[in-house]
Amino acid sequence: MTVPKKKGARNKSEILGATIELLESINYSSLTIEAVAARSSVGKTTIYRWWKHKSDLVFDAFIAKTETIYEFDLTKSTYENFVQQLLTLTSVLKSGIGRAVLTVVAEEREIAAKFLNDYLTPRRVETKKILQVGVDKGEIQDNCDFGIILDMLYGPIYFKFILFNRIPDQAYIESLVTQVMKGIGLNNSSYLEE
Amino acid sequence: MTVPKKKGARNKSEILGATIELLESINYSSLTIEAVAARSSVGKTTIYRWWKHKSDLVFDAFIAKTETIYEFDLTKSTYENFVQQLLTLTSVLKSGIGRAVLTVVAEEREIAAKFLNDYLTPRRVETKKILQVGVDKGEIQDNCDFGIILDMLYGPIYFKFILFNRIPDQAYIESLVTQVMKGIGLNNSSYLEE
Repeated sequence: MTVPKKKGARNKSEILGATIELLESINYSSLTIEAVAARSSVGKTTIYRWWKHKSDLVFDAFIAKTETIYEFDLTKSTYENFVQQLLTLTSVLKSGIGRAVLTVVAEEREIAAKFLNDYLTPRRVETKKILQVGVDKGEIQDNCDFGIILDMLYGPIYFKFILFNRIPDQAYIESLVTQVMKGIGLNNSSYLEE
Repeated sequence: MTVPKKKGARNKSEILGATIELLESINYSSLTIEAVAARSSVGKTTIYRWWKHKSDLVFDAFIAKTETIYEFDLTKSTYENFVQQLLTLTSVLKSGIGRAVLTVVAEEREIAAKFLNDYLTPRRVETKKILQVGVDKGEIQDNCDFGIILDMLYGPIYFKFILFNRIPDQAYIESLVTQVMKGIGLNNSSYLEE
């Protein structure tokens, strides 16, 4: 009984990997289930057994790809952690799978709801921890609205990407985090090192 | 010679008006050129003479609708002007024509480029004036990066709208502007009146 299950899990991760790889060279609308099947050496029916539509497949590939990359180091400063988080986010957004998932989010309401529930919301729970540790360490004020602070950090990145078709660079991210920290910081020197 | 020209201009504004009105009760995908023609009492060919596709028509209707609504009063404080600007933006985004234009922006690259060039970029030139007057009046610091400040104000609104499917309310907007002002303000009392 365990053998086919293992094989299933291996197949699944190979299919998701093939999807991510293919999207590095082609865009979402050109992606076909046939190409994913060929690249992961499974039959099309195997793919359709797990994913009804390529949008579902792309979404799951995105979640698989981003599951482990947003780790942060709470011994570092709030400033450093947010710069790192936003750099990781921009690298995700400019990757093929990142662009593809935003295309799907724009086109399909159901996937937009999944993006919010399965990606953005859990990520926000995690990033609020960075703020809480900042408060606990005395780096930032204890009366600030965490939701608004996160919107001020993440909103501009998505705004630039979606509406300006631009990926913010490191200099932009450092300026943004510095500016946000100015409004919530207690000790200027701790985050304005450079 | 002037009579047909006037008629053309009147027709054009009636067509744009009919588009805006129709989008209050139906969404973008249900909008048809037939319905716009019927409501504005012109022939379909008249509409197609000016707009090749309904996405172009919707974009022009959006520009017509928003042309005059973003006026600001430079005798008021920076805080008050930005709260007013963001309230106006949210009322635009939640209107039928606002939702429609964002649908089009998500679907069509060409319209996304027009949205950036013909709407966002000129709006940014205008809103930078609010910041410059704030600097001149001594309300805000003279060394801040205007682009980043505007991204911190406008980014969260679009972020909430596009990815969270939520329209920020007045309380959110006031908290956001207050928080942004904390990082750039010189005189707390001038914008933290309430």
